[in-house]
Amino acid sequence: MEVINRYITIKNHVDGAPHDSDFDLTSSPVSLSLDPASGEVIVKNLYVSIDPYQLNRMKSHSSSQKSSEFAVAITPGEDIDAYGVGKVVASGNPKFDKGDIVAGLLKWGEFTAVKPGGMLNKLDPMGFPLSYHVGILGFSGLTAYAGLFEICKPKKGEKVFVSAALGSVGNLVGQFAKAFGCYVVGSAGSKAKVALLKEKLGFDDAFNYREETDLKSTLTRYFPDGIDVYFDNVGGQMQEAAVSNMNINGRIAVCGVISEYTDCENRAAPSMIDVIYKRIKIQGFLAGDYLNIFGDFLSTTCDHLRTGTIQPLEDISDGVESIPSALINIFRGQNIGKKIVKIAEE
Amino acid sequence: MEVINRYITIKNHVDGAPHDSDFDLTSSPVSLSLDPASGEVIVKNLYVSIDPYQLNRMKSHSSSQKSSEFAVAITPGEDIDAYGVGKVVASGNPKFDKGDIVAGLLKWGEFTAVKPGGMLNKLDPMGFPLSYHVGILGFSGLTAYAGLFEICKPKKGEKVFVSAALGSVGNLVGQFAKAFGCYVVGSAGSKAKVALLKEKLGFDDAFNYREETDLKSTLTRYFPDGIDVYFDNVGGQMQEAAVSNMNINGRIAVCGVISEYTDCENRAAPSMIDVIYKRIKIQGFLAGDYLNIFGDFLSTTCDHLRTGTIQPLEDISDGVESIPSALINIFRGQNIGKKIVKIAEE
Repeated sequence: MEVINRYITIKNHVDGAPHDSDFDLTSSPVSLSLDPASGEVIVKNLYVSIDPYQLNRMKSHSSSQKSSEFAVAITPGEDIDAYGVGKVVASGNPKFDKGDIVAGLLKWGEFTAVKPGGMLNKLDPMGFPLSYHVGILGFSGLTAYAGLFEICKPKKGEKVFVSAALGSVGNLVGQFAKAFGCYVVGSAGSKAKVALLKEKLGFDDAFNYREETDLKSTLTRYFPDGIDVYFDNVGGQMQEAAVSNMNINGRIAVCGVISEYTDCENRAAPSMIDVIYKRIKIQGFLAGDYLNIFGDFLSTTCDHLRTGTIQPLEDISDGVESIPSALINIFRGQNIGKKIVKIAEE
Repeated sequence: MEVINRYITIKNHVDGAPHDSDFDLTSSPVSLSLDPASGEVIVKNLYVSIDPYQLNRMKSHSSSQKSSEFAVAITPGEDIDAYGVGKVVASGNPKFDKGDIVAGLLKWGEFTAVKPGGMLNKLDPMGFPLSYHVGILGFSGLTAYAGLFEICKPKKGEKVFVSAALGSVGNLVGQFAKAFGCYVVGSAGSKAKVALLKEKLGFDDAFNYREETDLKSTLTRYFPDGIDVYFDNVGGQMQEAAVSNMNINGRIAVCGVISEYTDCENRAAPSMIDVIYKRIKIQGFLAGDYLNIFGDFLSTTCDHLRTGTIQPLEDISDGVESIPSALINIFRGQNIGKKIVKIAEE
């Protein structure tokens, strides 16, 4: 038996901001008759994650493209892998049965043929919506949790700054830090987002960076006693301003660089004199290195969700054809929280 | 009894490269009759350290000037503190006797009046020349040792790059790393320096950065398998090139930024995408935070000196009046190893 799989490809490498014309909706048949010895699994994709890092993979060249499975270059015309949740519709792998709900590295498409050794695990939804497992209980959540607690190691009462604070990771960093007992300020790109951060997510304060002309003095205003921890999702001038406002022994987790994704010349040039004298640590990280704490992360986050200490913030579009605009809109600052595309009903 | 103390001051703040006209040789009387209850000590300075960081303190403004006793702004017309070795000539402090050899925070001058609580310790020369205790067995050595072993934590066989590799700290970083079992390449500013690094100090390789037009490809040539550890003494384009050539989990100890000291706009803007995907750590540090390992550092370094594994490299000028040119020449790349001014015979 065969099904038609519709999936997203890029027509060409994308070196600036992405546009509709960079993408194609392609289709090809997928066989559901698998050799029981093949080890292969066919997954019907239900929810797939839309993340800024994908744009970096679409560049014609990036020196980081060899350094992680999440950084591998995307080839025009080929399917694009992405984290997601789905349902097994055919299995040639004894570890999976038809009907299993699974999470792992799927494709931006309707079906995924997962080869033996592919990143795929059975998923216990634990009473939460499946979409949560793409975001808050998936890699976005782990990224926020590992970056904050493993890289920045905050102490209660410390001052935490988060940029792109309504993004998929940023909103969770702020909420984790608040739940832990830190003072948290976030930056975002609109008045409505600032209101959400303060009123719905419990940030101590927030500001709209588009209304500010001098980020260095903005941060001095919001952090009169300095910043201890900066969770950096944007790079560029915001990182420079944060370094300038950092306290001694300040820590910066570098998680994303929206500013560099669309313009590789738009780089942060923080004062290294400050880095030295204030003993600042600037540390890049990938959530994939912290799978050893996934269990801790999951139980802590489920507890917070059950008690209502942390709010999930999802921005869900429908249908495989909405994937390109979902990605494009992230770079236009139009997502509120975790951007997910729902591909199909369970 | 009084002596005349000649000492160096700045006439004005120094915001670019330093020049002779920025300095004055001033003099004032110092009383050697101390109240036994004063806690004060008068030290006749013998050797004082000349370090690039002093220029940062001479700027009209630096945001780091509040963050460490080694970063406090220098006021025009006032004496300038610096690490050094001297001899007690008068003591109102029961911990010190006349004739004691001491090391600590002295002044760029002929005498230092050390107030109670000032950084001063009796020194056991352990059979080494006193000048060693200003450099290789003093803060330069501790800076190299702590930055390499505490911040970068090298493993045997790892690839280490050191910039300003003939500087007071750089030459020791390279020698410590070689003695530990790393592959070490250094950069310096002349053919003669490159020869010294390879022939006298045992670096595996070295290059003259002034002969290179594209530092990124230079480093690729010297590190075909990538850099694991970069000990950064210069910042700027060299740091960008190093980040680009760094391996996964690479570590950068930021020790100095010659490029920023003389031109605060000349900042490194490393690719943060590389920092993320390669999980690079960029960490500033000050040796003063590692006094807890001073004992380890000292015994290890003394052993290396006695066995000849590590060569001391000193560049000594004579007389208090040579202090300004000693500092100026560091920024012209004219020192070979640790720059020290000998103020007086013991």
